[in-house]
Amino acid sequence: MAVTVVGSVAFDSLETPFGKRERVLGGAATHFSIAASFFTDVNLVGVVGEDFGDDQVAVLTDRGVNVDDLERVPGSCSFHWSGRYEDDMTVAHTLDTQLNVFAEFDPQLSENARSASVLFLANILPELQQRVREQCRDAFCAGLDSMNYWIGSAREALVAAIRGVDVVTLNDAEVRMLTQEPNLARAARKLRELGPRVVLVKQGPYGACMFTDSSFFSIPAYPLETVLDPTGAGDAFAGGFFGFLDSTNDRDLSDNTLRCASVYGSVLASYIVEDFGSGRLLELTHDEISSRFDDFKEMMSFDSPALRARQVV
Amino acid sequence: MAVTVVGSVAFDSLETPFGKRERVLGGAATHFSIAASFFTDVNLVGVVGEDFGDDQVAVLTDRGVNVDDLERVPGSCSFHWSGRYEDDMTVAHTLDTQLNVFAEFDPQLSENARSASVLFLANILPELQQRVREQCRDAFCAGLDSMNYWIGSAREALVAAIRGVDVVTLNDAEVRMLTQEPNLARAARKLRELGPRVVLVKQGPYGACMFTDSSFFSIPAYPLETVLDPTGAGDAFAGGFFGFLDSTNDRDLSDNTLRCASVYGSVLASYIVEDFGSGRLLELTHDEISSRFDDFKEMMSFDSPALRARQVV
Repeated sequence: MAVTVVGSVAFDSLETPFGKRERVLGGAATHFSIAASFFTDVNLVGVVGEDFGDDQVAVLTDRGVNVDDLERVPGSCSFHWSGRYEDDMTVAHTLDTQLNVFAEFDPQLSENARSASVLFLANILPELQQRVREQCRDAFCAGLDSMNYWIGSAREALVAAIRGVDVVTLNDAEVRMLTQEPNLARAARKLRELGPRVVLVKQGPYGACMFTDSSFFSIPAYPLETVLDPTGAGDAFAGGFFGFLDSTNDRDLSDNTLRCASVYGSVLASYIVEDFGSGRLLELTHDEISSRFDDFKEMMSFDSPALRARQVV
Repeated sequence: MAVTVVGSVAFDSLETPFGKRERVLGGAATHFSIAASFFTDVNLVGVVGEDFGDDQVAVLTDRGVNVDDLERVPGSCSFHWSGRYEDDMTVAHTLDTQLNVFAEFDPQLSENARSASVLFLANILPELQQRVREQCRDAFCAGLDSMNYWIGSAREALVAAIRGVDVVTLNDAEVRMLTQEPNLARAARKLRELGPRVVLVKQGPYGACMFTDSSFFSIPAYPLETVLDPTGAGDAFAGGFFGFLDSTNDRDLSDNTLRCASVYGSVLASYIVEDFGSGRLLELTHDEISSRFDDFKEMMSFDSPALRARQVV
């Protein structure tokens, strides 16, 4: 069993109320891979430039991530994103985006990457998502992320890509924008009618919720008093979700498996925001993951009261 | 056992994407009382004008609400609020506010209202909240709601009122505004340091969360496909919460009692928004309350996986 992820591997320059960092290792596929590596084997499909050194590669391989499908283009630079967060830490303001090698990205997956049991199409050009999905047909579960930019500029290709996957992960504004439906429950139903069995709605500081065939599940955000850098929270969430899902090999995608996967996703998301980049995940232990998993269970539990509502009238 | 609530009893003129209604029976104390009446006896302390007829009084007394402390001022008009909601149904735009009798409101509680076991100070002038609290000293639990207007214009009096209660219910923007702290967990801690043991944070379409001495609890909003009118959701939430709490007579405010109370609050809030004003609550049955309570439990439950995270690295 293994997860294949395709997406950006990048340098991020970040500004938050807690500090500034230049050229931190970032990108959706990076954060996803590191998070998923706690649960299963990971193949990373991506592209970097000559500025991506052995130290950066070692961060991934030290976590056991297979980088055979990470292409390094000589004489070019890696994708570089610069962003800033204000006090409320919920909205990323993009200061600069340099696509560099990413502009010409057209992944041809190795046999190993094609044979993965789970596939995650991180936020890239929807047509590339479709092409990668076609190369990786055996996955028992395929997931897809996207963003407002593609909803606005490539809606048709995005809808086509969504038709080919089992799980969509978007934030709630994106779900509403894509379906043109302000009510989230209706919007999720519309999205599921396109094909995906599972709609995972990321809700930033409010956590996440999940619409499936048979149920609705909601999970809070972990109540952290200090969030250093929210970058990558959604990618770590997806890494925890799909990594755990792959480790179960539950090909029916049963509801409880999906629920546990979303809790593990929330655990990984809650840790990654405690430091810049993937810094916190690189020190994370399995005991810490288990401990926060139990915290989530406790935060959501209650015993029904001995007496039900008194019938006054 | 009984809950005493002090707050507005009003006529609301409402505009939502689903329609318009003129002079619907409204006001925080009205919605609170009707919601709480499913759990315990309720004393409503408020003031209305001559335009408040026997039909309106009957809506309350039919639910068993004690209106002995509802003063009717001859020759005057009741409080009247006009508001509009846009497509996303989250923000109320006030079109007009006519305080009328409410401007001179200075409640003197009857012996019966003073002897309540639970007190709820709905959103009114903070100095009035303090004065009512002083008249009702025996309650084992006192709660308070407020709004951005009072945080801006009467912060000191509001903080003094908050020092006198056990439970504060505010929405998350108000919690942040009052404490001048953008991080919700820190903001709730600051608020609890003023005195209240429980901070209940209303989060609109995201549900609610609760900070107590010993724990954090989060509860989603019920995933309704149709919300006709969000007015009164917070008041119905408080009515369910404090009504249930009173019915348990749990003077220790144990964590599970508070959790169940917040679930009942969410149940009542989820019903009131299904129709204009309190219309839906007036048809509500105890079976429907129990059924949605169970739905909430189901929406928040998961069994830990048989195998924990595989230790890959």
